[in-house]
Amino acid sequence: MRRHPIRQSLLALMVASLACGGAFAEDEAKPTAAPTMASVMESAKDSDWRDLDPDNTLYMDLPGGRVIIELAPAFAPQGVANIRQLVKDGYFDGLAIIRSQDNYVVQWGDPNADNAAGSENPPKAIGKAKDKVPGEYFRMAEGLPFTALPDPDTYATQTGFSDGFPVGRDGADGRAWLTHCYGMLGVARGMEPDSGNGAQLYVVIGHAPRHLDRNVTLVGQVWAGMELLSTMPRGKGPLGFYEDPSRRTSIASIRLASDLAEDQRQPIQIMKTDSDTFGQLIQARRHRAEDWFLDPADHLSVCNMIIPSRLKPAATPGE
Amino acid sequence: MRRHPIRQSLLALMVASLACGGAFAEDEAKPTAAPTMASVMESAKDSDWRDLDPDNTLYMDLPGGRVIIELAPAFAPQGVANIRQLVKDGYFDGLAIIRSQDNYVVQWGDPNADNAAGSENPPKAIGKAKDKVPGEYFRMAEGLPFTALPDPDTYATQTGFSDGFPVGRDGADGRAWLTHCYGMLGVARGMEPDSGNGAQLYVVIGHAPRHLDRNVTLVGQVWAGMELLSTMPRGKGPLGFYEDPSRRTSIASIRLASDLAEDQRQPIQIMKTDSDTFGQLIQARRHRAEDWFLDPADHLSVCNMIIPSRLKPAATPGE
Repeated sequence: MRRHPIRQSLLALMVASLACGGAFAEDEAKPTAAPTMASVMESAKDSDWRDLDPDNTLYMDLPGGRVIIELAPAFAPQGVANIRQLVKDGYFDGLAIIRSQDNYVVQWGDPNADNAAGSENPPKAIGKAKDKVPGEYFRMAEGLPFTALPDPDTYATQTGFSDGFPVGRDGADGRAWLTHCYGMLGVARGMEPDSGNGAQLYVVIGHAPRHLDRNVTLVGQVWAGMELLSTMPRGKGPLGFYEDPSRRTSIASIRLASDLAEDQRQPIQIMKTDSDTFGQLIQARRHRAEDWFLDPADHLSVCNMIIPSRLKPAATPGE
Repeated sequence: MRRHPIRQSLLALMVASLACGGAFAEDEAKPTAAPTMASVMESAKDSDWRDLDPDNTLYMDLPGGRVIIELAPAFAPQGVANIRQLVKDGYFDGLAIIRSQDNYVVQWGDPNADNAAGSENPPKAIGKAKDKVPGEYFRMAEGLPFTALPDPDTYATQTGFSDGFPVGRDGADGRAWLTHCYGMLGVARGMEPDSGNGAQLYVVIGHAPRHLDRNVTLVGQVWAGMELLSTMPRGKGPLGFYEDPSRRTSIASIRLASDLAEDQRQPIQIMKTDSDTFGQLIQARRHRAEDWFLDPADHLSVCNMIIPSRLKPAATPGE
């Protein structure tokens, strides 16, 4: 028998389903008194899923495949608008992954960004996009859907999920912010709060660097293709920047799904985080009822939840 | 100017120092009222560092380089003893990385472990090592050195560090256990608590799966070469096992440092986690005083601390 530290085969298959057709394999867990994540997923309904909005979906095409990202205009409307403009102008096409720092971030942008305008390899023009965008480090929680987690968090007075995004809240001052979990997309910036305009973006590829929360603008999260980013060779320079340009990976293109014909889009669905099913999944992940677990944690941190995604099932003829 | 989400150049250099000679670059942060991690490191003394014990140090040689692991006999004496026996018998030499699951674990062992004894490719014999080892999921906290963190944790009533390892404690029942942070080494097991004997080992390569704490035996942590494990191509099979054997990476050898001649060992030092300097580093990481930070977290989770390591400085002639 293969030994493994945890039975989460269904979840592995859910993630894999984005690449191989969306079918779930049979659950190998035995029935137990308390629901398991697998048994909750079995009872999920089609109405528990939402389609990714093509206006908020980026396809980043790398030599190894596609990374699919959902933008978060509810948290960073100005940052998202500028990234949409950069993408529409084809700004990222031909640029590169310029940084890969172990247990931290992968970052992409213009390798010539530091060069002088009149040099042999000048920075790429940003076209109609803005050069400076104010930091959007938090917003007011009012008006946001929010599914709270019951357990304490090291960094926020409350954590939970809003429309599929991990969120921290401060009960006293009413602020809410996206949290730096694995797979979150952020706007790299310099010393000035408005120095990040989305032309350089990073994705978290390690343990959640939650100390960055409210210090940098998060604008989205990766739903598919994370392994293309997380396995990038690490850069040898300070902060994981590549010193050897040949180690960089080039970006074929980044496109908005809504700029592609409908039959060119990937119909990804995300479980609604305000659904009863998702609430049951939280409980099943807090209390791991599978036989393998001897001492269930009965607690869950916001970056340890898995939000299910799938390819939308094809419509049955006659429906 | 290169935009980056965080100024931690000194830390990046500390990690890099294991590969390039141990010298620290100058800190680029400006002086501030509160100490920064960089300013604390500048005032560190030689007595703040401990040598890795060669009897507890594994060198895992892969085609891409060496992974250096410290074992934790204080927490898993039986597991560590069995792994030492396997290593002395050369058990791992020629075996392979058999699993790489994104945001979770890399795992190694015998690719033929599931085959029948009389088959064409039978499992490798484990020699004098034990076939079953009891789970060592926790121990009593009494007698352990412990440097506590002041902030709440989602999974444990208290967290901190013991001789360089991240630890959770339960104040009520006196138990202490190693926590599943990035880079921790664990003993894969099947359904039975004694079914893990160290012949299959895993390393955490993603966000800390803290729900595994106290459900599986942790036996050590990686101090160098993590990037060799974290960038392994992900397996396409369930749980990230490789379905295509050609995707596996073979293990040239795993050796105990104490079984090599002294001049063949790498003189790595780890900052003592019970030193005043480490206590100051915790405070500097809780409150990031660097100018870049606009809203310091003033909190720190156990898996978000960085424990400095370095190559031992060469003795100055005449000393």
